[in-house]
Amino acid sequence: MKLGIIGLGRMGGNIARRLMRHGHQVIVYDRNQPLIDALAGEGAEPAGSLDDMRGKLDHPAIFWVMLPAGAPTEETVIALSEHCGADSIVIDGGNSFYKDDIRRAKMLGEKGVHYVDVGTSGGVWGLERGYCMMIGGDKATVDHLDPIFDALAPGQGDVPRTPGREDADDPRAEKGYIHAGPAGAGHFVKMVHNGIEYGLMQAYAEGFDVLAAKNSEKLPEDQRYDLNMTDIAEVWRRGSVISSWLLDLTAQALAKDERLEGFSGRVSDSGEGRWTIEAAMEEAVPAHVLSAALYARYRSRLDNTFGEKVLSAMRFGFGGHVEVPQ
Amino acid sequence: MKLGIIGLGRMGGNIARRLMRHGHQVIVYDRNQPLIDALAGEGAEPAGSLDDMRGKLDHPAIFWVMLPAGAPTEETVIALSEHCGADSIVIDGGNSFYKDDIRRAKMLGEKGVHYVDVGTSGGVWGLERGYCMMIGGDKATVDHLDPIFDALAPGQGDVPRTPGREDADDPRAEKGYIHAGPAGAGHFVKMVHNGIEYGLMQAYAEGFDVLAAKNSEKLPEDQRYDLNMTDIAEVWRRGSVISSWLLDLTAQALAKDERLEGFSGRVSDSGEGRWTIEAAMEEAVPAHVLSAALYARYRSRLDNTFGEKVLSAMRFGFGGHVEVPQ
Amino acid sequence: MKLGIIGLGRMGGNIARRLMRHGHQVIVYDRNQPLIDALAGEGAEPAGSLDDMRGKLDHPAIFWVMLPAGAPTEETVIALSEHCGADSIVIDGGNSFYKDDIRRAKMLGEKGVHYVDVGTSGGVWGLERGYCMMIGGDKATVDHLDPIFDALAPGQGDVPRTPGREDADDPRAEKGYIHAGPAGAGHFVKMVHNGIEYGLMQAYAEGFDVLAAKNSEKLPEDQRYDLNMTDIAEVWRRGSVISSWLLDLTAQALAKDERLEGFSGRVSDSGEGRWTIEAAMEEAVPAHVLSAALYARYRSRLDNTFGEKVLSAMRFGFGGHVEVPQ
Amino acid sequence: MKLGIIGLGRMGGNIARRLMRHGHQVIVYDRNQPLIDALAGEGAEPAGSLDDMRGKLDHPAIFWVMLPAGAPTEETVIALSEHCGADSIVIDGGNSFYKDDIRRAKMLGEKGVHYVDVGTSGGVWGLERGYCMMIGGDKATVDHLDPIFDALAPGQGDVPRTPGREDADDPRAEKGYIHAGPAGAGHFVKMVHNGIEYGLMQAYAEGFDVLAAKNSEKLPEDQRYDLNMTDIAEVWRRGSVISSWLLDLTAQALAKDERLEGFSGRVSDSGEGRWTIEAAMEEAVPAHVLSAALYARYRSRLDNTFGEKVLSAMRFGFGGHVEVPQ
Repeated sequence: MKLGIIGLGRMGGNIARRLMRHGHQVIVYDRNQPLIDALAGEGAEPAGSLDDMRGKLDHPAIFWVMLPAGAPTEETVIALSEHCGADSIVIDGGNSFYKDDIRRAKMLGEKGVHYVDVGTSGGVWGLERGYCMMIGGDKATVDHLDPIFDALAPGQGDVPRTPGREDADDPRAEKGYIHAGPAGAGHFVKMVHNGIEYGLMQAYAEGFDVLAAKNSEKLPEDQRYDLNMTDIAEVWRRGSVISSWLLDLTAQALAKDERLEGFSGRVSDSGEGRWTIEAAMEEAVPAHVLSAALYARYRSRLDNTFGEKVLSAMRFGFGGHVEVPQ
Repeated sequence: MKLGIIGLGRMGGNIARRLMRHGHQVIVYDRNQPLIDALAGEGAEPAGSLDDMRGKLDHPAIFWVMLPAGAPTEETVIALSEHCGADSIVIDGGNSFYKDDIRRAKMLGEKGVHYVDVGTSGGVWGLERGYCMMIGGDKATVDHLDPIFDALAPGQGDVPRTPGREDADDPRAEKGYIHAGPAGAGHFVKMVHNGIEYGLMQAYAEGFDVLAAKNSEKLPEDQRYDLNMTDIAEVWRRGSVISSWLLDLTAQALAKDERLEGFSGRVSDSGEGRWTIEAAMEEAVPAHVLSAALYARYRSRLDNTFGEKVLSAMRFGFGGHVEVPQ
Repeated sequence: MKLGIIGLGRMGGNIARRLMRHGHQVIVYDRNQPLIDALAGEGAEPAGSLDDMRGKLDHPAIFWVMLPAGAPTEETVIALSEHCGADSIVIDGGNSFYKDDIRRAKMLGEKGVHYVDVGTSGGVWGLERGYCMMIGGDKATVDHLDPIFDALAPGQGDVPRTPGREDADDPRAEKGYIHAGPAGAGHFVKMVHNGIEYGLMQAYAEGFDVLAAKNSEKLPEDQRYDLNMTDIAEVWRRGSVISSWLLDLTAQALAKDERLEGFSGRVSDSGEGRWTIEAAMEEAVPAHVLSAALYARYRSRLDNTFGEKVLSAMRFGFGGHVEVPQ
Repeated sequence: MKLGIIGLGRMGGNIARRLMRHGHQVIVYDRNQPLIDALAGEGAEPAGSLDDMRGKLDHPAIFWVMLPAGAPTEETVIALSEHCGADSIVIDGGNSFYKDDIRRAKMLGEKGVHYVDVGTSGGVWGLERGYCMMIGGDKATVDHLDPIFDALAPGQGDVPRTPGREDADDPRAEKGYIHAGPAGAGHFVKMVHNGIEYGLMQAYAEGFDVLAAKNSEKLPEDQRYDLNMTDIAEVWRRGSVISSWLLDLTAQALAKDERLEGFSGRVSDSGEGRWTIEAAMEEAVPAHVLSAALYARYRSRLDNTFGEKVLSAMRFGFGGHVEVPQ
């Protein structure tokens, strides 16, 4: 198929590449000209503007927007929808909040434009491994785009089949993509995916902290071990209950630098973790682990807080305990 | 009554003072001679050693041990029990682990010595306000010691009577002390008291953090307030649902220094918070808030942890996110 | 002063009563006629409609809206603002989300109407104890309303003065109300107050669970106590570090029924707990305890969840552990 | 090599089988005769008692104890150590607490008997996939047992090599086993492994709860989706960041029964989760996620708790909120 891709960063660029490898035609645009040039050198057709791109696409046209969530995506989606003509399709492959999708789908629908939200997991590895995609939108449109999703998805590959799936109605899940539901459903499932990701990561992090602290010189010598983090991460990859791709990545990082001294440990978070908590609250679902994982990231970026000083002040107040600045 | 007090720190010294004010005779000992001298100057009888103290007490003797939990208390209790003679009473008024009480009570019981554990709350304010006491031990011994507990307790004072308590069997709770049960029960209830204390403190701390961050220059100006922490703490003391003594202390600290700059915010914890979690785990009781409060103190004393670097390393691994040391 | 009160439920009715006791004139309205009649019988002037109320007030008029947050408050505020005339004042004394206040203040401001948000704590006890109030709005309007707030507030009463406050600029905090800042600031501070309230309550709840489970027949007999919850709650009120008004209420409930058999333990939550978490997330402030407290309420209302079945299914998958429906 | 295996349950029986498949000679014993008979039918040599087993082994002998942690393991280890003779080796392959290992290693060492602790992960799948093993003990003994561990481990298989490990000193980690350190180190690392496992499982569980609740009829229809849990679990296995073996198992369970109606959701826990929290507390390491995961299991097994009734009672106390038994 022929489609335009707007946003050629780490994700968008590789999506363009993977589509070309599977024989699709891509027209590419980014505000940053060198990113366009790079893709053009690999066979993509460059566009000088959104208008230019529109001119180079068939009608109805297909656009894949791969920009940061929030204003950049919003503005581009609206700009595209204004001139692309009825029956065109605008795909948001970024990390938008699912309620924005619902709103946009309605807005674009009034112009006869189809809106599809695609939650895309796979990070920098997607080019080689393929992208896991969770898709929201109307059935006909999603079906129409199937060749694109099929090309981007990992396919069955060498991931063993789940026993009991032989009779599944929908073969797409086994190839690495699903039509999750109407507008927003794709990003909703992707959002929860990221919420889980935060929880998984924090579980490993806490476990490694318990291991690392067991090596600490703060412990009495007879309570101390000399555990090898690198080997532990490696052995857990092999036959243990907690093997996972995140653990593979941890093992790789440790194999390079057992002390991880190149990392600050001040950990960022993007919207999805927070939105998952908001969704949990809207549904009155307890999400202790997912929110604790989010808060651990917040705290990792802070020095001692005002609230911690309040604790010190109370302790001084009732017990005369002195916790002075160092 | 006449009793010996071993350990004249913040708590032990004031307990001696309050007992003297209520007409009891106290013999005092501490490894630190000036502490003995100070009490002697206020009317206590000084002892030069545990042996000396024993000689100055009636038989059977009463000892109140007010030392740090762990080795200091353990060694003193054992030393006392070896020579004090049958029917003597050893009171541990410190913060021992309740399982140590159970073990000691059995050990002393074999020598005919009575062991009483007293969990004591009230901190540096106890001399004036009286001490809230949770007592474990055999009934006859606890009853025998009633004049001592009665003197130390706050009494009914001006704390309003709880409606419905008019017919309560036991008047002691209204005076500020209870016989909680056999050996260890006093420290068990005190332990849970401290576990709750941690939770309460952390609830206020988080609330003040949410308030303080609303003043932060990191927020866009139109989302920012200029909240006055001192006045907020004060107003909550007056008619609000969250008024408490801990809030009173917070208001006092803020009235002195609205920014609490004299405090580091690196918050210590003693054994009780941890033991409460252990008890919860032995009973399979969920204790999310109590353990979160404990962990917040741990984190307040740490710089970025190894586990946080593991998070950064994973994020770099799957997404190319760079969180480097600053 | 003369003001109209709309909404005569538990809170609104008592606010009307307390204002009358302090010599203010109140016109009252509620959709529920008997509530109007009751207040009329106590000296309030009844109104048959918002229009009728407006006619009975001086101009510019003062309205105190005391309705459930959300649609009821929103609709009433808008209805009032449309006809009340410039310089009138609309007070929202309910539990609105502070961002709604900001929006409404702007909307009413365009008509020259002043909007004041008042977070009110004190519950069913406010009539006697007075209400703790956190107020948002422009300074002139809040100052103008001072006689009303002064009447509703508890006043200094017998709550001891906080040392160090002698020189405080603003005497209002000591009387139980503050002008927290511009529109929304009142409800923002009240929201955090409620978030803290959830955390405090859960800390006590977990502590009592650890105590209660120690009485459980599931424990081996030699690890069991027979702790008296009623006496424990009572003794902690007296001289302990964790004394508070919430503990007073707990002691009252236990004095009536030690097993609390009249309560389901399926605990509701209103918006403030959730909004506090949202605010924490907007500010990137860790709020482990406040969110754990909220989640505990969610879980208290649920039977075994789908996620818990996922846990069982995984355990069966890797270990053959069988956790079948009972 | 020749070794005795005591305990022929799910784990012990399959360990015996896997060792035989790799050419080792196993003598088997269990209190349950049919389990012995079954293994004997597959080529193992049956023993009628520990004494009988000892007679059938070479000297110094090797014993692999695969029994429930606590008394069964303790008694068997002691019984074996009393008569097995110097230089014999007792392996505890179960889930013992690592401090018990340290104590036992010392106790057996005084008799010249070597003690090795092996934390074994892999569950019912180990027979085919091999077991991931974390081993504690003295170097010479662990090296001597290498043929046994090598046979039980998964080997490199088709798990891709971690980039950067080419020069690793110790090839064992890549084959699925490590010598973690002296006595107890094996079970310590396995304990943390299980702590992480709890955290990972709970992260998935909460995520699926957020998804499932989005299908709930309690939500207004326009906020509801009709998400397919089975397909979602499947698609996340393929190229997503959260793919893992636990997710594979989840996908299998859902493929069999999308509603998981065969499971109660009342989730058990064994010692390791709790011990991981204890270790975290000994080291003052925050472990919010690991403990939240443990508590979620506790709560899953409870009806409404006393503490939850305390919450209801407080709410009634301050606000007149009524939460009565249903």
